[in-house]
Amino acid sequence: MLFMAEMEVRLPADMPAGEADEIKAREKAYSQELQRDGRWRHIWRVAGRYANVSIFDVGSVDELHDLLSGLPLFPYMDIRVTALAGHPSAIAEGPNAPENREKERGS
Amino acid sequence: MLFMAEMEVRLPADMPAGEADEIKAREKAYSQELQRDGRWRHIWRVAGRYANVSIFDVGSVDELHDLLSGLPLFPYMDIRVTALAGHPSAIAEGPNAPENREKERGS
Amino acid sequence: MLFMAEMEVRLPADMPAGEADEIKAREKAYSQELQRDGRWRHIWRVAGRYANVSIFDVGSVDELHDLLSGLPLFPYMDIRVTALAGHPSAIAEGPNAPENREKERGS
Amino acid sequence: MLFMAEMEVRLPADMPAGEADEIKAREKAYSQELQRDGRWRHIWRVAGRYANVSIFDVGSVDELHDLLSGLPLFPYMDIRVTALAGHPSAIAEGPNAPENREKERGS
Amino acid sequence: MLFMAEMEVRLPADMPAGEADEIKAREKAYSQELQRDGRWRHIWRVAGRYANVSIFDVGSVDELHDLLSGLPLFPYMDIRVTALAGHPSAIAEGPNAPENREKERGS
Amino acid sequence: MLFMAEMEVRLPADMPAGEADEIKAREKAYSQELQRDGRWRHIWRVAGRYANVSIFDVGSVDELHDLLSGLPLFPYMDIRVTALAGHPSAIAEGPNAPENREKERGS
Amino acid sequence: MLFMAEMEVRLPADMPAGEADEIKAREKAYSQELQRDGRWRHIWRVAGRYANVSIFDVGSVDELHDLLSGLPLFPYMDIRVTALAGHPSAIAEGPNAPENREKERGS
Amino acid sequence: MLFMAEMEVRLPADMPAGEADEIKAREKAYSQELQRDGRWRHIWRVAGRYANVSIFDVGSVDELHDLLSGLPLFPYMDIRVTALAGHPSAIAEGPNAPENREKERGS
Amino acid sequence: MLFMAEMEVRLPADMPAGEADEIKAREKAYSQELQRDGRWRHIWRVAGRYANVSIFDVGSVDELHDLLSGLPLFPYMDIRVTALAGHPSAIAEGPNAPENREKERGS
Amino acid sequence: MLFMAEMEVRLPADMPAGEADEIKAREKAYSQELQRDGRWRHIWRVAGRYANVSIFDVGSVDELHDLLSGLPLFPYMDIRVTALAGHPSAIAEGPNAPENREKERGS
Repeated sequence: MLFMAEMEVRLPADMPAGEADEIKAREKAYSQELQRDGRWRHIWRVAGRYANVSIFDVGSVDELHDLLSGLPLFPYMDIRVTALAGHPSAIAEGPNAPENREKERGS
Repeated sequence: MLFMAEMEVRLPADMPAGEADEIKAREKAYSQELQRDGRWRHIWRVAGRYANVSIFDVGSVDELHDLLSGLPLFPYMDIRVTALAGHPSAIAEGPNAPENREKERGS
Repeated sequence: MLFMAEMEVRLPADMPAGEADEIKAREKAYSQELQRDGRWRHIWRVAGRYANVSIFDVGSVDELHDLLSGLPLFPYMDIRVTALAGHPSAIAEGPNAPENREKERGS
Repeated sequence: MLFMAEMEVRLPADMPAGEADEIKAREKAYSQELQRDGRWRHIWRVAGRYANVSIFDVGSVDELHDLLSGLPLFPYMDIRVTALAGHPSAIAEGPNAPENREKERGS
Repeated sequence: MLFMAEMEVRLPADMPAGEADEIKAREKAYSQELQRDGRWRHIWRVAGRYANVSIFDVGSVDELHDLLSGLPLFPYMDIRVTALAGHPSAIAEGPNAPENREKERGS
Repeated sequence: MLFMAEMEVRLPADMPAGEADEIKAREKAYSQELQRDGRWRHIWRVAGRYANVSIFDVGSVDELHDLLSGLPLFPYMDIRVTALAGHPSAIAEGPNAPENREKERGS
Repeated sequence: MLFMAEMEVRLPADMPAGEADEIKAREKAYSQELQRDGRWRHIWRVAGRYANVSIFDVGSVDELHDLLSGLPLFPYMDIRVTALAGHPSAIAEGPNAPENREKERGS
Repeated sequence: MLFMAEMEVRLPADMPAGEADEIKAREKAYSQELQRDGRWRHIWRVAGRYANVSIFDVGSVDELHDLLSGLPLFPYMDIRVTALAGHPSAIAEGPNAPENREKERGS
Repeated sequence: MLFMAEMEVRLPADMPAGEADEIKAREKAYSQELQRDGRWRHIWRVAGRYANVSIFDVGSVDELHDLLSGLPLFPYMDIRVTALAGHPSAIAEGPNAPENREKERGS
Repeated sequence: MLFMAEMEVRLPADMPAGEADEIKAREKAYSQELQRDGRWRHIWRVAGRYANVSIFDVGSVDELHDLLSGLPLFPYMDIRVTALAGHPSAIAEGPNAPENREKERGS
């Protein structure tokens, strides 16, 4: 099941650089692990902003919230979640079609 | 190069059903052709709305605008475009990484 | 899995009363059937508006979208969907706790 | 009488973790007591946000405000209240119907 | 129990003047009856707009919604309801204090 | 002449409790004095928020601004002023009618 | 007493040109009469919009609303009113100072 | 050439009173000098807010920006500029008409 | 003097195609003439929308408004004007620097 | 390929003047270098705000994001990016026409 999460990050201006880098490193590791297991399907940088558009493929809303609220940067994030259904125009054989999602989830 | 397009469709309430169905059929064909050639990378339905979130992979902004303004439903659409850059956390071997995008564009 | 749907209805001012009543009757029947099978868990009227706040309990986002887009009033609705996870403070024995939801879905 | 309260929590970035945990513990106890006596009818977590959607069943607006302003996290909350009336489509025998509300309030 | 209702009226531009005047006359009569029985406590015109700010004193949210949705102009109105509690600074002997409200309700 | 003032209060999170209580005490005294002399006609608490809706009856805009900017909490307030005219539906004998306002101003 | 009124005009697209010109002519005459008697103190065109910023000098809010709601274009206008007080920095001898306003009102 | 500037001032809550007063004094002197030379044509206080509506009469946008960015309070201001053209209804002999503006600029 | 104008066009859904094409042809000719004389300095299409971002170089706000309100599509446009000053970082020899603007205006 | 970037700068109120000046100096040098190599095509100051409107001419969205996120002031900026396509009305021989862009990029 797919959800879009649009995440804006605002770190406090007075956060020491070292602390910020450490959190960002943990965030990157956390994200890459979820990308490898296929639940974090896509992550793109919004041009010009410390923000991303991500697509999650999870089994439930609870699982989605656990993933998002577990982000190291979560306390500094404004996240907007949009529930995504399959689109009637989505072509079967593309990366988008339901039956291909399982294949693409890193299986 | 990736762009997100969030499209809301508002057909006039007094449009005859037949005319609406005809435009939707052309829209579906138009979309599926672009999905097959890889430029319309993803299309998802926003749950509860006559709206979609789409990801386009195009060579220029002009190409993007030509595709969007060529949509049969374009006169009835409110479209918001977001330019997407690669994200530093995107893992190389996923569907997301730059080098895989060419492969996935149906080449 | 729970989703909140906030629905505003705007019927065209020039819609004949008879036609409006007919659609509303179908809407009511449609809603009550879903309430009986437990998927439309709650429906409340927003005081002062032709709008409601509803809570759906469904198995997937696709199912949610099918239910919402199948509403007879859907073409005249502006719907905002919010994905709801379980809350850490929710008490077990209340109507809210996950394990009671199955019971309450009329199963 | 039902009211929806949508609560966003923003704790100061520089609040010591211990202090935050202590307030959250008091908040949880406060909420669970109200859930047990039936006045805090529902509480759900908004996926991806430190926010909740709650439904209160109270005797007056004053009672509602006393409950909300008594929340330990109140000083750090942005709360939007929506007054909810019974919906004409609400089925009698569901958890939603007026006559069942009394039963469900922990009687 | 007090509720503020902020009402904006937008009549269709092509509504015949006679029809508009007839609805407005019914609206005025409807409002004045509720003012006499004390439930419509205050009604003020927002300077420069076809809008009003009203204060209702009702026994429940359902009663409030019945009153508002019964307004002849309701189909052409955008109404925002705010639930009002007693204010800790409200002086006892003023028109505002709870105990005076009963007196002032035209009893 | 009537004006609605919608006031949201946001005290700095790190303001010592004693200082806050002291300002609030001065605010209450200031408000109650104006209520007694009839210029602060109504004050209601917005349910769920540290905010109020107030109705002022003053002789000029300058007088209104002097009253509002003199509030001890003014530096921490976001105030929205709406100019209120008499409403054509307002019934003569109610608390609302112009001729009663002079009486009710504690004359 | 000064009020700013920001007025946006939206005429129905299908209004016959003749009818529009006739209303605009009445609007111009109406406005110029109020400018001559000093109550419509200033009227400026917002560059690029069918909108104006106006400053009114009136004796009461009721008078302001009567003037605005009497505008021939009123049914097609969205008007935002801002109550203006004297500014502590306003220099005495300028057109702005209170004591000069009487002189400038053509008295 | 006329521009409206709507200025909201937000001083940091922890700015020492002395520092604030000093800046305000410089701001007042700065403003009054520009009022005397006619470039700061009008300044009004927005009732209930630490904000003003001002009308500037300058020779270019660059001149306008230099004046505004030179305000002592500029770092604490949110300023919205609206370019104002002459209005076709503006009467010749009023303070508003173009030909009178030169006269009124304190020449 | 430079102004940015952001223009959104919304043609009535029921406007005959021929009429729309005729207006668009006049709009194109009107625009190209102003581009040739240098006053319409830049015009770009907003990707995905029937909208443009334009930069005008005019002698006064009145001239700007005359140009914009003279657009054949003006009745169907929503235009937002932003006054642009020279930027302190603008390099002298670029197309941006003031002294080059005269050259580039085709003088 | 063209992108508009609208940048608002908000420096922390308590940043020492020296630190601010140092960052601004680096920002100016950074910007001017990009202007010289033609990628930062235009930069204008928004009158009355610490903000600019810029036009970038880059080869990809990634390049755009690298340029913007490399700005010394980036951590204190709110940037809104709009993708710009060629406009069908753009005249060939103007600075705007595609074929002239290469020439003007200092190639």
